[in-house]
Amino acid sequence: MLKAAIVGATGYTGRELVSILLCHPKVRPFYLTSDSFAGKSIAEIYPQFRGRCELTLEKLDVEKAGACDIIFAALPHGTSLDVVPRLLAAGKKVVDLSGDFRLKDAALYPLWYGYEHRQPALLTESVYGLPEQNRDAIRKARLVANPGCYPTSVQLPLIPLLQAGLVEAEDIIIDAKSGVSGAGRTPKQAYHFPECAENFKAYKVTGHQHTPEIEQGLSAAAGRQVTLLFTPHLVPMIRGILSTMYLRLKPGVDAEDITALYRKVYAGEPFIRLLPEPYLPETKDVSGTNFCDLAFRVDGRTGRLVVISAIDNLVKGAAGQAVQNMNIMLNLPETAGLI
Amino acid sequence: MLKAAIVGATGYTGRELVSILLCHPKVRPFYLTSDSFAGKSIAEIYPQFRGRCELTLEKLDVEKAGACDIIFAALPHGTSLDVVPRLLAAGKKVVDLSGDFRLKDAALYPLWYGYEHRQPALLTESVYGLPEQNRDAIRKARLVANPGCYPTSVQLPLIPLLQAGLVEAEDIIIDAKSGVSGAGRTPKQAYHFPECAENFKAYKVTGHQHTPEIEQGLSAAAGRQVTLLFTPHLVPMIRGILSTMYLRLKPGVDAEDITALYRKVYAGEPFIRLLPEPYLPETKDVSGTNFCDLAFRVDGRTGRLVVISAIDNLVKGAAGQAVQNMNIMLNLPETAGLI
Amino acid sequence: MLKAAIVGATGYTGRELVSILLCHPKVRPFYLTSDSFAGKSIAEIYPQFRGRCELTLEKLDVEKAGACDIIFAALPHGTSLDVVPRLLAAGKKVVDLSGDFRLKDAALYPLWYGYEHRQPALLTESVYGLPEQNRDAIRKARLVANPGCYPTSVQLPLIPLLQAGLVEAEDIIIDAKSGVSGAGRTPKQAYHFPECAENFKAYKVTGHQHTPEIEQGLSAAAGRQVTLLFTPHLVPMIRGILSTMYLRLKPGVDAEDITALYRKVYAGEPFIRLLPEPYLPETKDVSGTNFCDLAFRVDGRTGRLVVISAIDNLVKGAAGQAVQNMNIMLNLPETAGLI
Amino acid sequence: MLKAAIVGATGYTGRELVSILLCHPKVRPFYLTSDSFAGKSIAEIYPQFRGRCELTLEKLDVEKAGACDIIFAALPHGTSLDVVPRLLAAGKKVVDLSGDFRLKDAALYPLWYGYEHRQPALLTESVYGLPEQNRDAIRKARLVANPGCYPTSVQLPLIPLLQAGLVEAEDIIIDAKSGVSGAGRTPKQAYHFPECAENFKAYKVTGHQHTPEIEQGLSAAAGRQVTLLFTPHLVPMIRGILSTMYLRLKPGVDAEDITALYRKVYAGEPFIRLLPEPYLPETKDVSGTNFCDLAFRVDGRTGRLVVISAIDNLVKGAAGQAVQNMNIMLNLPETAGLI
Repeated sequence: MLKAAIVGATGYTGRELVSILLCHPKVRPFYLTSDSFAGKSIAEIYPQFRGRCELTLEKLDVEKAGACDIIFAALPHGTSLDVVPRLLAAGKKVVDLSGDFRLKDAALYPLWYGYEHRQPALLTESVYGLPEQNRDAIRKARLVANPGCYPTSVQLPLIPLLQAGLVEAEDIIIDAKSGVSGAGRTPKQAYHFPECAENFKAYKVTGHQHTPEIEQGLSAAAGRQVTLLFTPHLVPMIRGILSTMYLRLKPGVDAEDITALYRKVYAGEPFIRLLPEPYLPETKDVSGTNFCDLAFRVDGRTGRLVVISAIDNLVKGAAGQAVQNMNIMLNLPETAGLI
Repeated sequence: MLKAAIVGATGYTGRELVSILLCHPKVRPFYLTSDSFAGKSIAEIYPQFRGRCELTLEKLDVEKAGACDIIFAALPHGTSLDVVPRLLAAGKKVVDLSGDFRLKDAALYPLWYGYEHRQPALLTESVYGLPEQNRDAIRKARLVANPGCYPTSVQLPLIPLLQAGLVEAEDIIIDAKSGVSGAGRTPKQAYHFPECAENFKAYKVTGHQHTPEIEQGLSAAAGRQVTLLFTPHLVPMIRGILSTMYLRLKPGVDAEDITALYRKVYAGEPFIRLLPEPYLPETKDVSGTNFCDLAFRVDGRTGRLVVISAIDNLVKGAAGQAVQNMNIMLNLPETAGLI
Repeated sequence: MLKAAIVGATGYTGRELVSILLCHPKVRPFYLTSDSFAGKSIAEIYPQFRGRCELTLEKLDVEKAGACDIIFAALPHGTSLDVVPRLLAAGKKVVDLSGDFRLKDAALYPLWYGYEHRQPALLTESVYGLPEQNRDAIRKARLVANPGCYPTSVQLPLIPLLQAGLVEAEDIIIDAKSGVSGAGRTPKQAYHFPECAENFKAYKVTGHQHTPEIEQGLSAAAGRQVTLLFTPHLVPMIRGILSTMYLRLKPGVDAEDITALYRKVYAGEPFIRLLPEPYLPETKDVSGTNFCDLAFRVDGRTGRLVVISAIDNLVKGAAGQAVQNMNIMLNLPETAGLI
Repeated sequence: MLKAAIVGATGYTGRELVSILLCHPKVRPFYLTSDSFAGKSIAEIYPQFRGRCELTLEKLDVEKAGACDIIFAALPHGTSLDVVPRLLAAGKKVVDLSGDFRLKDAALYPLWYGYEHRQPALLTESVYGLPEQNRDAIRKARLVANPGCYPTSVQLPLIPLLQAGLVEAEDIIIDAKSGVSGAGRTPKQAYHFPECAENFKAYKVTGHQHTPEIEQGLSAAAGRQVTLLFTPHLVPMIRGILSTMYLRLKPGVDAEDITALYRKVYAGEPFIRLLPEPYLPETKDVSGTNFCDLAFRVDGRTGRLVVISAIDNLVKGAAGQAVQNMNIMLNLPETAGLI
């Protein structure tokens, strides 16, 4: 069995990585780190692992991480920035689940993440880990920047449309909704059960840090700068993202063109499911899986195209996609441990 | 005390009417009808009313309804159509909570509601019961068509913008999210707890029957035909609607103009609350109340205006607004029983 | 209008007090204190109050509190202990919602609350605020110790049974279940939405601090020391307590005796509802109200009596009962503001 | 790969069987039947299976079922009674998930299930499928009666205590709480989301049909007739059962004896986890797994023993245990597909 290190194993994405790797046929969680819980067993933090994985959490020792075959960094934004270079120096491949290496333009970090990026060379080197787009580059990468949850749910359906030129690159509106686990494991007022249950709200309107990540991907697809409006919302459920995307068809394009494109582009993709009418994506249908479910409707009255996608934010939106990337990087079957 | 009849008292809007009227200083629930539960007490259907209201449900007897001072019709779409004319014939004022008398253009009913409208004269006569717009007409009305839940959440924020010409009438996108009580009390697979909890989805994409109702209101405000895209979603919570609306500012209009307009238009309105930055509407803040909370953001990057509103779908979106209309029709203080 | 001070207004019981008093016909929230949020408006902490109550929170000034007609102390256990004597010194009546003045035996505090009680005279003086038992004493009290949420749900059904000697005082088992608001407003890991939703658990098994409070009430009723087993559980819902209580009937006692007793004892009680067969209490039927719903079943097979009660933990279990006590103390109608 | 038939595949236990078997290393779902949905794909009923399992549902053809290596009957109580004999006649081993073959005493069926049992010989022959107790008999069985969800959660912790004589067989009280999926997939008023969310209640107090099943198992363990009190409750969550059990220790027995017993009895059991202090079972820790988590507390004050267990009602409480039984019956590793 190959060995995986998870640096920052006690957040929800860390937990999900442990959970997925425990069922993986070729890779095992082997070295788990945590600053806050060092000395405890992962099963003390997450009793679901009792009897299945009782590794002791340790403060990060780069050498020990380097003794594994793959390293996952599941650290907060801003922290990965300093840790990942040390992990790479250990000579092992790294999948980073933070936002710290996703944006190619370092100038965007102060604006959207609130810090100056200090590793511009790694920004250049890192490969954006959306396998359905970058499979070959991922295979050769030393550092994969695992996509954000919202950006995954948006780019999988929209990149093909923009690449094929079926939709306008202007005036794209994304209305996205996420379960609460997307906000992480640290308790805060807004995620306290009595504040959060029986409630629905938008947040970070016009200012969410996933906006430039989505624009970067869509711009590359469109071959021109895409500026879009992205509004995230908080849903009183644990897992899942549903994104509702509003676009304009290019003149002459109709629903059949869209269906044909998706069928062609995603024919061989094991994790993309295009739903036929009358079905629409629901988060429960992808919960706990690495699938991205897609559907669309053309609104004859307004000429708008509505595209809807659903993913599990912790799986295809984080840990599952990270394992998919690992599979590619280690030349394992891409679906290993995921279906 | 004045007497109210509620025709169709066992649905969620009927229950909410009973609940509100039990606290009303001048009006009491007096005559409750139900086809399915005739002979039972309302407290058997809704044990919350035990000891507070134990009226026996009866099959509709128009004469008895006519002996009340006001009649609420809380019947399914398509059923009100035939019942309301009989109620009016009894000589009493009627607030109808169905969609059957909301659209002025009878030709829209076959398209959106799936039936031919057989009461065109009443379509002409009925007054659309949005008090913040139609207070004077409501005062004199014999038949008030109480607005739909989604249309209330959309028209309250958008009508002033269109009336004042601050936004374009084209290219309006509404992404709305509702709690499950909006689907009514009858159990169905999609609203079965295990299907509905921990799930989020869109439904009736491009085809929801509230679309023409919203367009009718916004067209009147804009002074021209408005065609928009409306997408409803189902949130795993009991009550509440949050609508996220995407518009374009007219050239030269800025955030201060919007704030100034809302302050002017809604200055004296007891149920409209404009939230200052950094606050955004949340459904829990209006739950159980007749308030509509509003906020907006101008997105400098795309030139879009994002407007967000929150209401309780069963109160300002149904029974609360119906009582507000009743108060106006009966010359009672408009907020009686509601604050 | 009479004026109420709420010391510690930003917890959930403080919020509920504000909410109830805003609808009270004779008393208004007038002076609100908070250590952590002094200087902010209560409507900033709870936006539901926007436009309805925008009092500024202040650090406690005993003189200002003393200028009100009634003072509610809604402070954490251990804090009230020192604040309440100062409030009493201001010469006004106080309803204390903490556990600090509920137990007559000061020796129980170190064991169950973890602190030495420093106000034994006030323990003696304070009146336990269960109006259905102590109405007359409450009327004359200077300090009312408002009962705990679980103890309310247990004592209302069990005290009459023990007073009348229909059940054995030994071997009483109480299995209670509470919504998450019972844990207060401060965010903690266990009440973080993703940990709490889709989860059910017991907590503080054999060690919950409400145990001696329940035993004190039942012992007085039984005329002998009652020692019982109390197990609280956490339900993934915001509000509500359901207590399932297991007792033994005394020889010769049957279901009719129990019904007859409850009917007699609770005949005139506005907030106690005995449900006839086949109905059973559900928390949703008392949500937002000051009711306590009761039902029981005699199990012929084991000779056990099962009693079930439901209350809203924040209303009859806290703020509603506090207002009921206030009404009695101020010679207002006992149900004012509560039905 | 071995082939499994699932008769009645569209209920929640049927769905869970499909889900588990899709990840099983040796057995595949092969033949799925449904009366109501014959002709549709299982993926139309449960879109989560799209791309993973698109078997067409058929009306039951006993010959086709008999062509599989194992047959699961996941039918409603009362229906299995007639179908299982036909399946057995096809010469294949059957795991029946209904209650129709669990009780050895046919006379209990009219009392608790409301029908006369017409297959007394099969009642005698069937093996009760609790592997931790009956592994050898299951191995040789033609018909395994898979235990009920509540009985599994109760018998796993209590049988060893009674077998070892550490607790009294009298006066056992079980207070159990289940998620809503336990009520099945058919929509009913009580499980309609707006009735069920934010609500907690007891149901079938003193009359639940799992009572005699639990008593049968505990009586065998105690070597004498056990009569107990069982009270089920409904929790607003999808999955999970937590049972809180109240017993009396035999004189001289202490907590260490209990721990020692559980350690000995359950040492080699892959699905039983005894939690050390201070941990207590929570349903989320076993969600989606075949584990049963156990803990207990001795209450020195009352001399009572409190035992708490948690299972996933659809897994260890139904489909997971059925697959565990299948593994034993087919001489596969007992944990195959389950860990």
